[in-house]
Amino acid sequence: MRESIRCGVIGLGRLGCWHARNLASSIKGAELVCVADTVAEQAEKIARELGVSRWTNDPDRLLGDPEIDAVVIATPTVAHADLAIRAARNGKHLFVEKPLTRHLEEASAVIEAIRANRVRCQVGFMRRFDPAYSEAKRRIAAGDIGAPIYFKAVSRDPVSPPAAFIANSGGMFLDMAIHDYDAARYLMGAEVTSVAAHGSVLANDFMKALGDVDQSLTYVTFDSGAAGDIESSRNAGYGYDIRAEVVGTEGTLVIGSLRRRDVALLTSKGRTHDIVPAFPERFKDAFQLEMAHFIEALREGGTPAVTEEDGLAAQEIAAAAQASFEAGRRIELQEWRNRNR
Amino acid sequence: MRESIRCGVIGLGRLGCWHARNLASSIKGAELVCVADTVAEQAEKIARELGVSRWTNDPDRLLGDPEIDAVVIATPTVAHADLAIRAARNGKHLFVEKPLTRHLEEASAVIEAIRANRVRCQVGFMRRFDPAYSEAKRRIAAGDIGAPIYFKAVSRDPVSPPAAFIANSGGMFLDMAIHDYDAARYLMGAEVTSVAAHGSVLANDFMKALGDVDQSLTYVTFDSGAAGDIESSRNAGYGYDIRAEVVGTEGTLVIGSLRRRDVALLTSKGRTHDIVPAFPERFKDAFQLEMAHFIEALREGGTPAVTEEDGLAAQEIAAAAQASFEAGRRIELQEWRNRNR
Amino acid sequence: MRESIRCGVIGLGRLGCWHARNLASSIKGAELVCVADTVAEQAEKIARELGVSRWTNDPDRLLGDPEIDAVVIATPTVAHADLAIRAARNGKHLFVEKPLTRHLEEASAVIEAIRANRVRCQVGFMRRFDPAYSEAKRRIAAGDIGAPIYFKAVSRDPVSPPAAFIANSGGMFLDMAIHDYDAARYLMGAEVTSVAAHGSVLANDFMKALGDVDQSLTYVTFDSGAAGDIESSRNAGYGYDIRAEVVGTEGTLVIGSLRRRDVALLTSKGRTHDIVPAFPERFKDAFQLEMAHFIEALREGGTPAVTEEDGLAAQEIAAAAQASFEAGRRIELQEWRNRNR
Amino acid sequence: MRESIRCGVIGLGRLGCWHARNLASSIKGAELVCVADTVAEQAEKIARELGVSRWTNDPDRLLGDPEIDAVVIATPTVAHADLAIRAARNGKHLFVEKPLTRHLEEASAVIEAIRANRVRCQVGFMRRFDPAYSEAKRRIAAGDIGAPIYFKAVSRDPVSPPAAFIANSGGMFLDMAIHDYDAARYLMGAEVTSVAAHGSVLANDFMKALGDVDQSLTYVTFDSGAAGDIESSRNAGYGYDIRAEVVGTEGTLVIGSLRRRDVALLTSKGRTHDIVPAFPERFKDAFQLEMAHFIEALREGGTPAVTEEDGLAAQEIAAAAQASFEAGRRIELQEWRNRNR
Repeated sequence: MRESIRCGVIGLGRLGCWHARNLASSIKGAELVCVADTVAEQAEKIARELGVSRWTNDPDRLLGDPEIDAVVIATPTVAHADLAIRAARNGKHLFVEKPLTRHLEEASAVIEAIRANRVRCQVGFMRRFDPAYSEAKRRIAAGDIGAPIYFKAVSRDPVSPPAAFIANSGGMFLDMAIHDYDAARYLMGAEVTSVAAHGSVLANDFMKALGDVDQSLTYVTFDSGAAGDIESSRNAGYGYDIRAEVVGTEGTLVIGSLRRRDVALLTSKGRTHDIVPAFPERFKDAFQLEMAHFIEALREGGTPAVTEEDGLAAQEIAAAAQASFEAGRRIELQEWRNRNR
Repeated sequence: MRESIRCGVIGLGRLGCWHARNLASSIKGAELVCVADTVAEQAEKIARELGVSRWTNDPDRLLGDPEIDAVVIATPTVAHADLAIRAARNGKHLFVEKPLTRHLEEASAVIEAIRANRVRCQVGFMRRFDPAYSEAKRRIAAGDIGAPIYFKAVSRDPVSPPAAFIANSGGMFLDMAIHDYDAARYLMGAEVTSVAAHGSVLANDFMKALGDVDQSLTYVTFDSGAAGDIESSRNAGYGYDIRAEVVGTEGTLVIGSLRRRDVALLTSKGRTHDIVPAFPERFKDAFQLEMAHFIEALREGGTPAVTEEDGLAAQEIAAAAQASFEAGRRIELQEWRNRNR
Repeated sequence: MRESIRCGVIGLGRLGCWHARNLASSIKGAELVCVADTVAEQAEKIARELGVSRWTNDPDRLLGDPEIDAVVIATPTVAHADLAIRAARNGKHLFVEKPLTRHLEEASAVIEAIRANRVRCQVGFMRRFDPAYSEAKRRIAAGDIGAPIYFKAVSRDPVSPPAAFIANSGGMFLDMAIHDYDAARYLMGAEVTSVAAHGSVLANDFMKALGDVDQSLTYVTFDSGAAGDIESSRNAGYGYDIRAEVVGTEGTLVIGSLRRRDVALLTSKGRTHDIVPAFPERFKDAFQLEMAHFIEALREGGTPAVTEEDGLAAQEIAAAAQASFEAGRRIELQEWRNRNR
Repeated sequence: MRESIRCGVIGLGRLGCWHARNLASSIKGAELVCVADTVAEQAEKIARELGVSRWTNDPDRLLGDPEIDAVVIATPTVAHADLAIRAARNGKHLFVEKPLTRHLEEASAVIEAIRANRVRCQVGFMRRFDPAYSEAKRRIAAGDIGAPIYFKAVSRDPVSPPAAFIANSGGMFLDMAIHDYDAARYLMGAEVTSVAAHGSVLANDFMKALGDVDQSLTYVTFDSGAAGDIESSRNAGYGYDIRAEVVGTEGTLVIGSLRRRDVALLTSKGRTHDIVPAFPERFKDAFQLEMAHFIEALREGGTPAVTEEDGLAAQEIAAAAQASFEAGRRIELQEWRNRNR
């Protein structure tokens, strides 16, 4: 086994900083050697905070650094494809935040570069590493619910990101619902064959000008004969609400809880539990575990559990959902794929 | 106030018997004077059990009985329209189980008969009387969640009724989802403007030959600008699972619980709660309260809270959902209404 | 089976009215023929409300009425013994609210009168009829938890009754903890062999002048070798909180829930459930079921499930707990019984 | 602020290993430089696993090491006093697992040594660092429940440790209930003034020969006028069950949950949640946070939040509870303290 994996992180927004912190302090076998952000001050600030000796505002310096084994790409989505391809060409292993790329056609180029340069890639679908999701997967595999026949997911953000973010996000289906498209494939052990997507603007009027929605619903069918539905919302208000269910022929698994801490307040107004306010609290362990898995896979020479192929599959569902929403009709994925070639 | 309302019940299947028992034993101001079922033995058996002196296998004898003020129609759906019209012509007030009629065009005739004969009518959407649903309604009206912007419902039966029942049921949308179409109108305080319905056969292959599905999903929009989704399933296996949520701009209400009784068993295998097994346990209070409300409305000369108009509105949504499912596209209700005239 | 049991209710406070209402409207086989209260206006008011033709402010008129088969005694505790003895001498069956009598020595006289006059008696320990408690009992009997080794109960009232009530209540142990002494015997299937009782005045200073406490804790041992603890409180504030646990060698049962209705409100302040506010909401079904059981036992000639012997057993535990609290030491029941003879 | 605190761990049982692992890998500002265990192989094994260069089977070598700033004492209880005193004399700061010492008289000597040598000490009451307990404390301090008037705790281990452990543990009150004695002081913000302790052997007969019990109940009063009860058990079977409640004049806080993960399995047998199986899962975060706090306090020159005084206070309650249990009567702490001087 390799002694340790020397890592660089590109993009020091909220998620990039999380990954950097985890790599610097709590991932066994990882060494954070460089951080990059187009805003030099941010790169320097994070480097100092984490005791990292190198920082840069030029991603190419990080990508060209021969002492770096693996690169975490956590920039805005639009930059993913270009950075991923250049990293692969420099022989760096890749951890790419979701979605793999902004446009579906870019994804193929990324995958080609990964294969041509024989590097390995993990996509940031951290839910697979959440203890509840992975326990559910384990139980389904163990046959505890018989054959899975229906998948149901609800993902609600407390508030919408600002218009500037939404404008570059790729839209509700690519930016948000994609987590559940991946969870659906993971938990159902099946591929999506059709999507019918609906959406509305319920609370954020600025979405209309951007052609986006703040609430969506995707009905999906699977090649196993199963079906499912996925609600995504920017409008929860009360907190960060992530749930999933897998209905099986012999039992049903219910994943998730709103509960922030195990303390309840009882008064004459009722029994009140705090609600998980935002994604870092909900998925703190998952972010840590996905990165530990990535580093371990690299050290042991194995393939990460969530590859660029998984990234592509979920991205394709998201693109088809977007097309379905725009066309106002159901889309069969195989047919749509053929037409789009 | 009228001393007491003399009632007859037509159709002594599971629901008809419940209504008859409630009228005979626990509805203040009601008197059950006659029961009818096409199977004479069943009519006699229930009459004896409840201490009712008159029974018949001929609904017309009940409908023509001058001592009867109100009739409960709990027959198979196909017979609703004819019985309701004849009851109205005989001057009887009507409690009609959902759906109002099997076919949408029959519903208009029923409504006309009700108006022409100046009788009053309540439709059996008992969820409105469930303490949890009515508490939710009360809180929405009190402004506790601001403006309602999303409605979500899950209704899952533990197992499908047999093919013989399904064949005459009018299908998933009319027979089952209709409860949530009504709950949606009730809780959202808004009318449905479009439906997009999807469905699959996941566990009961016989559905295919009948052109029905055992799992459906309806995406709806409301004239208030709100949206919603409604899952209906015959495949829960684990019990009778009825839930609803209303997301508002200031808060969200969650209705329902799987919990049968307040007893949990703890063993090294986990903490286990019994699950509500079937609809009578879940809606026992609601069935009682809806009938008490009907009788009280008749005694006080008021209009029942769930009228034939509500019956029609929900039925229309169901018919449009069926059409949407068959056509594979979203249906705007106004346009569809115009075309169907 | 007897056609119907003609009942009279003596004492029309909160509980007496409940029993009267249940007997008048929803207990099959019961007929409420007379109500009595020392306040004539209350007797008349309740009689009119329930459509009962006879009322009186003189219990003896009710007790002497040859058309009455059974009497419900729901007066203040101090009057129980005298009324019960007179009822028995008049050949009336008895439903006596808990505790059986105010003083332990009176209880023996009541039991003698019941036996001498061959009437039957049920004591108002309604928890045995609560669906959760009776389900727990059923499971223990079925062996679901192995041998029961520990009993735990919490009973908390939202607020203390006023000083005038407390002064005549017999104190915390006799008035309140007695419900759990009975539940302990019922669920553990064993007799209490020792008690050690503690108490404090935490929120109601007037208790001190009365020699009573508003919070108590009783540690008990059973002849089976098991043990247990029982907390009783007048100070919950947030609602009516009734819980019990039975720890067994193979599993543990947890009884109770604070939940009033299956509706939760989610806001940024958390997830809030209403709490059961007071005993009528919590034990509505139990009050109904205990009375139905009493009437059925009388009609079928059987012995009620909670007899005067059960009343005596729980009362003895309460008296010993009071003595333990006063003496500041543990009391062995057998020894204490011998000394008190 | 000091750059980093160089630590040694003495005693590499289950808890000692946890502390060593946390210090080696995830406590910012800590450096683990030596581990000691009387079993040399264990010391070597853990040192290699954690990449620590020094290990020894002679605690004195660790205590005499001038490069060590702070020592974690996680040996069997009987060795605490001697090691703590020698560590203090060598100028080492101390993290001592609970209880501070095996015998109350030793505790004074430890405290003297700590003061005389001006070292700082933290006792391992990790519950104070559990997110739920500390949130409860924060809310009480914020006045959310008014004045705290009752404390209730349940701590149940799934199974008893073996007889060999129990024999040297100091007994139920010192070994187990002590966590809740500390939690009581912490949450109530008050000192215990009297204890009345009860206990039984319910499932582990070997306890009798050792003069110990496997189930206990301590009733306590506080100098604030509040009261409370604490159940401790070795017999849960179903898992590790840790709960606490603080009843206040304006509200009540409930701490704890049996829930292991946010996944539920629904089948016709009910809804099942896994239960927390053992203490490491329940208090993983708390162990980490208490050590991080200790290191931070040392680096910043502050006093740890749980001092040797807190250790002594809880130990005194435990000793008095043991005496109360043996004497069969309530003990007033002040009086008992005076007599024992």
